[in-house]
Amino acid sequence: MAQKLRRHSIEMTTEAGSGHPTTCMSCAEIMAELFFEEMRFDPADPTGKNADVFVLSKGHAAPILWAALKEAGAIDDDLLTLRLHTSRIEGHPTPRNPWIRVTTGSLGQGLSAAAGMAWARKLDACKARVYALLGDGECAEGSVWEAAQFASFNKLDNLCAIVDVNRLGQSGPTMYQHEMGVYEARFKAFGWDAIVVDGHDLGVLRTAFGRARATTGKPVAILAKTLKGKGVSFVEDKEGWHGKPLKKGDELQKAVAELGDTNVTLKVEARHYPPPTEILSRQPALTPAYTGSEEVATREAYGAALAKLAKSAPQVVAIDGDTKNSTFAEKLKDVAPERFAEGYIAEQNMVGVALGMAAEGKIPFASSFACFLSRAYDFIRIAGCSAPSHLVLVGSHAGVSIGEDGPSQMALEDLAMMRAITAATVLYPSDAVSAERLVETAAKTPGIIYIRTSRPKTKVLYANDETFPIGGSKTLRTSTKDVVTVVAAGVTLHEALAAHDVLAKEGIAIRVIDLYSVKPIDAATLKLAARETKGIVSVEDHSVCGGIGEAVAAAASGTKVEILGVREVPRSGKPGELMKVHGISADAIVAAVKRLL
Amino acid sequence: MAQKLRRHSIEMTTEAGSGHPTTCMSCAEIMAELFFEEMRFDPADPTGKNADVFVLSKGHAAPILWAALKEAGAIDDDLLTLRLHTSRIEGHPTPRNPWIRVTTGSLGQGLSAAAGMAWARKLDACKARVYALLGDGECAEGSVWEAAQFASFNKLDNLCAIVDVNRLGQSGPTMYQHEMGVYEARFKAFGWDAIVVDGHDLGVLRTAFGRARATTGKPVAILAKTLKGKGVSFVEDKEGWHGKPLKKGDELQKAVAELGDTNVTLKVEARHYPPPTEILSRQPALTPAYTGSEEVATREAYGAALAKLAKSAPQVVAIDGDTKNSTFAEKLKDVAPERFAEGYIAEQNMVGVALGMAAEGKIPFASSFACFLSRAYDFIRIAGCSAPSHLVLVGSHAGVSIGEDGPSQMALEDLAMMRAITAATVLYPSDAVSAERLVETAAKTPGIIYIRTSRPKTKVLYANDETFPIGGSKTLRTSTKDVVTVVAAGVTLHEALAAHDVLAKEGIAIRVIDLYSVKPIDAATLKLAARETKGIVSVEDHSVCGGIGEAVAAAASGTKVEILGVREVPRSGKPGELMKVHGISADAIVAAVKRLL
Repeated sequence: MAQKLRRHSIEMTTEAGSGHPTTCMSCAEIMAELFFEEMRFDPADPTGKNADVFVLSKGHAAPILWAALKEAGAIDDDLLTLRLHTSRIEGHPTPRNPWIRVTTGSLGQGLSAAAGMAWARKLDACKARVYALLGDGECAEGSVWEAAQFASFNKLDNLCAIVDVNRLGQSGPTMYQHEMGVYEARFKAFGWDAIVVDGHDLGVLRTAFGRARATTGKPVAILAKTLKGKGVSFVEDKEGWHGKPLKKGDELQKAVAELGDTNVTLKVEARHYPPPTEILSRQPALTPAYTGSEEVATREAYGAALAKLAKSAPQVVAIDGDTKNSTFAEKLKDVAPERFAEGYIAEQNMVGVALGMAAEGKIPFASSFACFLSRAYDFIRIAGCSAPSHLVLVGSHAGVSIGEDGPSQMALEDLAMMRAITAATVLYPSDAVSAERLVETAAKTPGIIYIRTSRPKTKVLYANDETFPIGGSKTLRTSTKDVVTVVAAGVTLHEALAAHDVLAKEGIAIRVIDLYSVKPIDAATLKLAARETKGIVSVEDHSVCGGIGEAVAAAASGTKVEILGVREVPRSGKPGELMKVHGISADAIVAAVKRLL
Repeated sequence: MAQKLRRHSIEMTTEAGSGHPTTCMSCAEIMAELFFEEMRFDPADPTGKNADVFVLSKGHAAPILWAALKEAGAIDDDLLTLRLHTSRIEGHPTPRNPWIRVTTGSLGQGLSAAAGMAWARKLDACKARVYALLGDGECAEGSVWEAAQFASFNKLDNLCAIVDVNRLGQSGPTMYQHEMGVYEARFKAFGWDAIVVDGHDLGVLRTAFGRARATTGKPVAILAKTLKGKGVSFVEDKEGWHGKPLKKGDELQKAVAELGDTNVTLKVEARHYPPPTEILSRQPALTPAYTGSEEVATREAYGAALAKLAKSAPQVVAIDGDTKNSTFAEKLKDVAPERFAEGYIAEQNMVGVALGMAAEGKIPFASSFACFLSRAYDFIRIAGCSAPSHLVLVGSHAGVSIGEDGPSQMALEDLAMMRAITAATVLYPSDAVSAERLVETAAKTPGIIYIRTSRPKTKVLYANDETFPIGGSKTLRTSTKDVVTVVAAGVTLHEALAAHDVLAKEGIAIRVIDLYSVKPIDAATLKLAARETKGIVSVEDHSVCGGIGEAVAAAASGTKVEILGVREVPRSGKPGELMKVHGISADAIVAAVKRLL
C-alpha cells in the first residue's frame, strides 16, 4: 500500500504539472500505517465523531493524503483532478474536502490545531486520538515548540506527532539533516516522550504507534528517519527535487517501474470509540444590563459578556496569552475554569489551538492585546482559509489611547490586518452594551470574527435592548441640517460626539455614525450620508492605512472623505495627549469638519 | 548599585503612575553586573562601535535600563520624566534614546535582534559581544527558540543570553515557574551552553559571565533564578504586582526604606575592543540591462539585482527562509556567500535577525514568499517602531496568480499589512527594469521598505534608464481622450495594458497608471486623473481591503473608484483562470471601465 500511495502521488503531480511528489514519498509508510492500521475511523463519516483524526501539518504532501483517503474508501474524487480549479483535492489541504478540518500548507501550524483538537477531546471526555504529521523542515518554526509546550503542559496524551525527517528542505538540506538526536532532545526538553524510528519500516512504526497509544500523561512524538523521494532511485535523497513533478513519458515510467507491483487493495473497516456523554450546544443568548450613567471599558464588557455566554452556551471556550487580567478573558475562567485554556505568551499557538477547538465544535474566543495578535497573523490567515470554522479573536488595548506603555504595545494595524482576511468579519464596539451584543453575535456567527476592544473606560451609549446586526451602523446624531458626516468607532466615537456638541454650539450640525461593523460595512448608510452632507470625516485610533477611513472612502467613493488617524510612530504619553498629537481628538474632528464646509 | 537601580525603578514608576517596577527588581543584580563590570563600552559613545551591546528583550523592564544608563554616565535624562510624551525614556525601549538599537516590548523578539547583531559582528571580525536579557515568560514564544537555533547553528559565541527567571508572568505564574531544569534542557537541546545561577548573587553571576566569555563555538545562556519584586518584602515573589507601580506616600517610603542605603556611585571607564579592518560602505548603484523582448518574473529580477547590489555595496546582506530558490535571493549567495544567512523556515527570526544586522550598519534584504511574511508581522511592526533602522523585506509569490498551490501560499494581505505600518514604504514593481531600480532605491533609502514581487514571467515594460522615485507612478497609456483611468501594479498592470488595447479597438481610450510606489502614493497624478477622467478602476492581485484600491480611493477621494481585487478565499487553479474567477483579468477591467462610462 505504501508503494501504491507513492505511485498515486507521482502520477497525480505529473498529471497536474506541479506539486511535491518527493515530499509524499518519504512518508508513504507512515501514511499507510496510519490510515490502514493505526487510526480508528469510519471511512463513511468525515465528521470524525468519536474517531481518530489526522492533521497533515506538512501540507505540501497533500497528494498522498488524497491518495490515502481514496484508497481507504473515504473519498471518491478522481485523483488525477489534483490542483484543478473544479476539484476538491487541492494543492494543499483545505476544508473544501470534508475530511479536512483545518487548512494547512503554511508550515509549522498543524501541531497547534491538533493540540486544540486534543484539548477539546479531553474536555469532552472523548477517547479518540489526534495524529499530526510534520516535516523536519517545519520544526524550525518556533510555533511548533509553542504547540509542543502547550500539549505537554496540558498532558495531552491523546495527541501523537509524527515527524517525517527526510533531511531535505525546499532550497537545500534542513538545519539538522538526519541528526535524529537533535529532534529527540528537543521534544523531550519540551515535555514529550520521543521515539526515533526508521520511517520506512512498517514494523517499527507499528510498535511506536502502540507505545504512543499506551503512554499516559504526556504526548508522544514519533521521529521517523526517512528519505525524500524514497523508492525511486533517481530522486531518492537527492537535492533539487523539491516541489518538482516527474516528467510525463520516460521519467514517469521509469519511476513507476521501480515501485514495482502496486496492485493491492485494503479495506478499512469502520472503527469508533464509545461515545462520551454528549454536551448539548445551546444557542447563545445575552441580555445586557448596563445603566446609562456607568463608564465601562469595552474590554471589561467583553469579559463580562464572555462569562455570561459561557454560562448559557456550554460550547463556548476561551484561550488567552497571559493577558487575561487585561483582556478580561479571566471572567470566563471564574465561571468555567475547565473551559479556559491559558495559552501563555505564545500567540501563534493560541490562535492555532483555538482553530483546533473550533474543529471539534467549540466556539473559541482567543484574546490578547490587539497588537500581539499581529504575532499570529499567518495563523489567522490560515484560519481564514479554513472557513467556516468558527473562531472569535478579541484584541484589547487598541491604538494610541493605551498611553504610557508606548508604541510597542499599541495596535495600529489590527483593523487593516483583519479586514484584509477575505473571510473575516470585523467588529468594533464603542460602549458596554454594544460590546456585549457583539460578543453574543460573534458567538452565533460562523466564520472568523474579530472584535476590537479598548483600554479606557467610556460612557454607556445604548439602551440594553438595542441590537447590532453585522453589516449595520448606528446613526447617533442627525438632523435635517447635517452639513458633514463623522464616522468613528471605539474611543474616537466619543470624541466625535464631543465634537458634535462643540460644533452645535457654533450652529454647525453634523451627523455622527457609529461604525461598529467595520467589515462588512454599512455602505447604504454611508452613501446616504454622502448624498445628504458635504463630505465625510472618518476618525480612528489606528493607522490611516487599511482601517476605518479607507473602508469608508471605498464604500462611499465619489464623496470627499477626510481620514483622521495615526500617521507616524507614536511615543509614550498620556492617552488624551496622544489622541491630540495624532489628530484623532474632538478638536481635530472639529477642524476637519470645518475644512469640508 | 543593584539596590540603587531598584530604588530608581520604583521611584520612576511611582512618579509616572504606571510601569513595571517588580519586573525591574528581579534583574537588578544582573543589570548592575552587566553595566558596571561585565560589558566593555564607552558611556560617551552610544554607537557601540567595537563595544559590547545590550538588548533588553524583556522591554517592560525599561526603567532599570534607563537607571543603569544614567548611573553609568551614558545618559543625562531626568529619570523622573519616565513615560512623559516629551521624554526620551519611554515606557518600553525605543531608538528615540540613542542607546537603543531596536525597539523591544513585544516579548520574544530581542534574542533574534541580538543574534543578528552577533552575526554581523562575526562577519566584520568585530570582537565585541552582544548581551540579551530575556524574561522567563517570553521564553514561551516560539520565536525565542527560532533565535536560539539560529545562534547555535551559526556558532555565535559572541552572544550571551541572560534569562531572568522570576517565576511570575502578567496574569499569574509562568508555565514552569522556578523549574530551572526545563530552561536548561531546552537551551542545551537548542545547541547552547546553559548555566543555572542564583540571579541575585553577584559573585556567581560574575563567574557565569566569565565562563560565557571563555566559551567558543556556541552561544551561552545564563539562566538566573530570581524573585520578582526582590528587595521589598510586600511585593517580593508575590502575585498581583505585575505592571503596578507603588503608591506615593507610605507604600513607596516603606519600599525605599527596605532597600537601605543606596548612596553609591560607580564610574564606568570607557573600554573598547581593538577595531577590526573597516569595511567601507559604498553607495549602491545599479544599471539594468534588460531588452524589451524579454519576459522576466520580477522575483527573478530581484535576485539578479540583489547580486549586483552585493557586488557594488559591501554593506548589503541577505537572509531568507528556505525559499531562496523561489525568491531568487540565492543569487546573492552565489556572489557573496559569507553575506547570505540561511534563516530556514523561521520567518519571525528572519526579520528579527535582519533588524539586528541593520543595527550594525548592514543593509539587510530579508525575503520569503509574501504570504509567509505575515508570520513575522509582529516583528515587522516592531521594526517599524525602530525606524530609521534600514530593513528591506521582499515578498514573492503574491496573490492568486501563483495558481495551483492554493490559498495557503497566496499572499492577499501583504500590501494591507505593510501599508498599515506607519513607517513603512511599499513598492511593487511590474517588470524587470522597475524591479532592479526599486531594489537599488530600497538599498539607498533608510527605514523599512517592502518590495512585492510576482511569480509569473512578465514583459519588460521600461527602458533601462527609466527612474522610479519613491512616491511616483508611471502613466503608461494616456491621450486627450481618456475616459477612465485604470490603476494597477504587478501582474494586473499587464492585464490593464491588455484591457487598454481591447478598449482602444472599440474606440474607448483609457489612461493606465503603474502604481509602483503603493506607499507613499502619487496623489497628485491620481487627483489629476480623477479630474480628467470619469472615474478610476483599480485592480490588484490582493484583497480588496487595505491594498491598492483603498489607497487610491483615499488619495483621490471625491472620485468614483471601482476596486477590483480578491473578495473571497481562492482555491487551486491555473493562474490565468484564477485571475478571471476573481475578477482581476483584462476582461474584468474592460467590464469595469464600461460600468463607469
